Amino acid sequence: MLRTHTCGELRLEDAGQEVILTGWVQRVRDKGGVIWIDLRDRYGTTQLIFKAGVDAQGETAAALIQKAQEVGREYVLKAEGKVIERYSKNPKMPTGDIEIEVSALHVLNPSKVPPFTIEDETDGGEDLRMKYRYLDLRRSVVRRKLQLRHRMMQETRKYLDGQEFIEVETPVLIKSTPEGARDFVVPSRMHAGEFYALPQSPQTFKQLLMVSGFDRYFQIVKCFRDEDLRADRQPEFTQIDCEMSFVTQDDILNMFEGLTKHLFKTVKNLEMGDFPRMTYEEAMRTYGIDKPDTRFEMKFVELNAVAKGKGFNVFDQAELVVGINAKGCAEYTRKQLDALTEFVKRPQIGAKGLVYVKYNTDGSLKSSVDKFYSESELKAWAETMGATPGDLLLVLSGEKNHTRKAMAELRLHMGDELGLRDKNVFKPLWVLDFPLLEWNEDDQRFYAMHHPFTSPKPEDIERLDTDPGTVRANAYDLVINGVEIGGGSIRIYNRGLQNKMFQILGFTEEEAQKQFGFLLDAFEYGAPPHGGIAFGFDRMCALVDGAESIRDYIAFPKNNAGRDVMIDTPSTISQVQLDELHIQVKQDVSQQRAFQK
Amino acid sequence: MLRTHTCGELRLEDAGQEVILTGWVQRVRDKGGVIWIDLRDRYGTTQLIFKAGVDAQGETAAALIQKAQEVGREYVLKAEGKVIERYSKNPKMPTGDIEIEVSALHVLNPSKVPPFTIEDETDGGEDLRMKYRYLDLRRSVVRRKLQLRHRMMQETRKYLDGQEFIEVETPVLIKSTPEGARDFVVPSRMHAGEFYALPQSPQTFKQLLMVSGFDRYFQIVKCFRDEDLRADRQPEFTQIDCEMSFVTQDDILNMFEGLTKHLFKTVKNLEMGDFPRMTYEEAMRTYGIDKPDTRFEMKFVELNAVAKGKGFNVFDQAELVVGINAKGCAEYTRKQLDALTEFVKRPQIGAKGLVYVKYNTDGSLKSSVDKFYSESELKAWAETMGATPGDLLLVLSGEKNHTRKAMAELRLHMGDELGLRDKNVFKPLWVLDFPLLEWNEDDQRFYAMHHPFTSPKPEDIERLDTDPGTVRANAYDLVINGVEIGGGSIRIYNRGLQNKMFQILGFTEEEAQKQFGFLLDAFEYGAPPHGGIAFGFDRMCALVDGAESIRDYIAFPKNNAGRDVMIDTPSTISQVQLDELHIQVKQDVSQQRAFQK
Repeated sequence: MLRTHTCGELRLEDAGQEVILTGWVQRVRDKGGVIWIDLRDRYGTTQLIFKAGVDAQGETAAALIQKAQEVGREYVLKAEGKVIERYSKNPKMPTGDIEIEVSALHVLNPSKVPPFTIEDETDGGEDLRMKYRYLDLRRSVVRRKLQLRHRMMQETRKYLDGQEFIEVETPVLIKSTPEGARDFVVPSRMHAGEFYALPQSPQTFKQLLMVSGFDRYFQIVKCFRDEDLRADRQPEFTQIDCEMSFVTQDDILNMFEGLTKHLFKTVKNLEMGDFPRMTYEEAMRTYGIDKPDTRFEMKFVELNAVAKGKGFNVFDQAELVVGINAKGCAEYTRKQLDALTEFVKRPQIGAKGLVYVKYNTDGSLKSSVDKFYSESELKAWAETMGATPGDLLLVLSGEKNHTRKAMAELRLHMGDELGLRDKNVFKPLWVLDFPLLEWNEDDQRFYAMHHPFTSPKPEDIERLDTDPGTVRANAYDLVINGVEIGGGSIRIYNRGLQNKMFQILGFTEEEAQKQFGFLLDAFEYGAPPHGGIAFGFDRMCALVDGAESIRDYIAFPKNNAGRDVMIDTPSTISQVQLDELHIQVKQDVSQQRAFQK
Repeated sequence: MLRTHTCGELRLEDAGQEVILTGWVQRVRDKGGVIWIDLRDRYGTTQLIFKAGVDAQGETAAALIQKAQEVGREYVLKAEGKVIERYSKNPKMPTGDIEIEVSALHVLNPSKVPPFTIEDETDGGEDLRMKYRYLDLRRSVVRRKLQLRHRMMQETRKYLDGQEFIEVETPVLIKSTPEGARDFVVPSRMHAGEFYALPQSPQTFKQLLMVSGFDRYFQIVKCFRDEDLRADRQPEFTQIDCEMSFVTQDDILNMFEGLTKHLFKTVKNLEMGDFPRMTYEEAMRTYGIDKPDTRFEMKFVELNAVAKGKGFNVFDQAELVVGINAKGCAEYTRKQLDALTEFVKRPQIGAKGLVYVKYNTDGSLKSSVDKFYSESELKAWAETMGATPGDLLLVLSGEKNHTRKAMAELRLHMGDELGLRDKNVFKPLWVLDFPLLEWNEDDQRFYAMHHPFTSPKPEDIERLDTDPGTVRANAYDLVINGVEIGGGSIRIYNRGLQNKMFQILGFTEEEAQKQFGFLLDAFEYGAPPHGGIAFGFDRMCALVDGAESIRDYIAFPKNNAGRDVMIDTPSTISQVQLDELHIQVKQDVSQQRAFQK
């Protein structure tokens, strides 16, 4: 090594030792006869001191000081010298008791002035940081996020290896299947006119590994979806992908609850209790969403029984009247209430209006619908909702699904307003019994809610023919703080049932055989009962770390247009390459490109 | 779990216990009143016994026996029963002392008769095995190879994590660069006419991570090369990819020698001594190849001094006369010697002929060139080669490189013939100081021998302008048993030198900036000295396991035409997909395809 120590390890007990450090210049302070340089590496920062009067290694102190004076921010240095006790110690730095009295200095590489400051709080905007991602990653605050990701990966493997899971790499060059999201494809040179596709997940391969008797499989694996990118969606993302044989749903929940607890324990030193479980139906009824944030209560209470039939037309015509109780908010001002009304009327939320009931501390009730409801009628609402004096009831109404969705947004908004969504509190929840199918009005067909390999609940199978929309699946999601971090299901392992599923999804027998024939065939050679789960690893890292954005947990992310602005890709390729791959760029596109040049 | 135990864990001390096992039917033996079924899972095999007279759980013994009789190979069963001591024990099976007296049997899934036997020695040919890879993987002998791979991965991570390496995932959708092998590309939907490329290695990204101060990086990562496939080459393959900052070459060799020893120790329980080191020049001179198999000696001895100038025209005109000493082979028959001559004259080897000298046990010498050399002259050869009576000297001559290459093949052939290449013996070797550049006659230009980022040796840099072909690189390979399992180099970290390197490789300044501008720019912002290595993980697994072929160490390999015959890919994609991607298949290809249908 070019160094004897890192910049993070020297302490007072090392005083007197001759050392060599390497690293980057964080800061230079020049007080005339004395120069201090903070030298930084991944492990920490150590102060170098250059003093007049210290001649060593053939360099005069004056020459050394001059060299130190010429050094700029982010220069790479190698400094030799003696560890000495600091005159004024810095208790905030682990190395703050010592400094290095430098006797020889080598500039290993100079640096231009970086385009933004290499500090935890930088002056660089998002675009600049992404263009110079290699400098952005030099900031400790960013690097630490990737170190957390590293730790999460190692601990995931440790846990699963300890549970006899086998890590198997499944192929990246696979086959395009139109079901699901859009595939990225790769033209084949050796097979003209044919293409590979990049996997959206290793789903079929992990099921085949179960057919192979691997019993327990996992992989931390890149997956790919060519979708229009929303904020925080990446075209390539990482999954913890798992599958087990001879299991019931409970076995899977317990195993991966164990994994999650292990990660929080080892990475955050946080002990988690057992995870509550809730059906999809209950989640929708009480939180209006399939991934409720359970850090706070404020559950939905349905008010149809007490609010309808009193002459208030809006409620009378509504499929659902539903309220939440904002505890202790009876003092909300007109302005605050108007703001809430504006919030729910925003087009993204789309409620027509908001009804409120203030349960004043003096026991009186005041509402925006006093015209239609007597105080005793409002009291019945309050009782239904378990409200006590001082509370504020917020009520929405309309078509059931739409109203639940709007109320779910309002609930989260109130949670934010009331500071009930502490990022250092972690509330997990298993959501169970998802519907098997979703009806798509546009396409007039069912889609698989999870994917086509998910098993219906045995007791619901008979309704597959008569009423498929009501069939529940053995599917489950792990939700923490309102974020879905994982989801999975017990799979179909019987060819007949899988055929039926494809049929419901509108596949002809021929299409099913062409795309998934290998899996259907495999089911006829002794497929065991099996199920699994996949975690969104990028999101999981952000969540565990209490962060909103996943982007800094990915070393080299792409922007919202799917572009890596640092290496400037995607980009054009040569005609030779196109020819070899037997493809051409469409005429209009090439003409347009030529024109732009 | 559907089971209480696996098929591998029950022992005599469990006798009397009621258990539930699940697994696959390996074998059924029906002796009339008694039926035995060997039930197999990943963990082992346990014998089930069905006996007349045992009525239980509402099933009569007769009904149970009938059910057992209907079971076929590879059926998936769930069997409940009692652990009992076996009458005739099988000491070869870990569970051989017990069997399960079955009281209830459930067929979880039947199986068609598999297309080949699920045994260590199968009757299935390569093609059939690959088409039904999920059944092939069910064979313990194949599954164990992937379990070894799993163990290798976990131990690699354990070691590197312990050495403060950070595992960072680099992107898969990157940029096409024409230097090196051919890229797989991915058309962009959002950027018409533009393409991503799949990485041939994360080379530039890991160097950027060093610029970022990550200090120690690793990744076990998929890489992609669209090359014509030779046996045992895969279009997607896995690397252990590593990089370190502030290191000398020795630091890297020591670190990864440590990793290799750790893997052999933990996976094979084999202690390895320190790895010898040899320059490229010495390897070529004494073994004729840059990846010598050092399990046996038989080093080259150059005979120019003793063999030339004696009137034997073939030698006199040869640039190199070189011999190997096949110890103890003086008794080789005419037929054996003819076979060796035939071997070296095969077109792949291309020698014109073979000269031999038998050093007989009686001390006399007999050669194929007795006409030109006296016995005392031959004795001088023998002395030069350190031969003793009983040895056989094999001599080739001609142009230096060509002759060395042929002799290297002959040496390996002799090693095989004499049983000197034991697959249970492991002989590592570091080969150092590779040439920086290779001259390509066809293209009349230099190519980088390793890659364009490899640093020349500092003492050779001055020859970059005057005699680039003689410049050595700080590049190294790890060779075990004649197989190159890893290679790397100290990198250039200075923009000027990197520019010069690109210039030597024929890049214009514009091309270099377009393709590698991000890296060249990065070098100007404080790049540290750094270097790294990458191991071919598929090959490493095969080598550690003493196997020749890498294919069984890959769960779902592609065939030599780059095709996955199980899922049948590459395959055609829809016109809608092509349109969205702004590409079309070339006219002639689409016509041809339509015609074939």
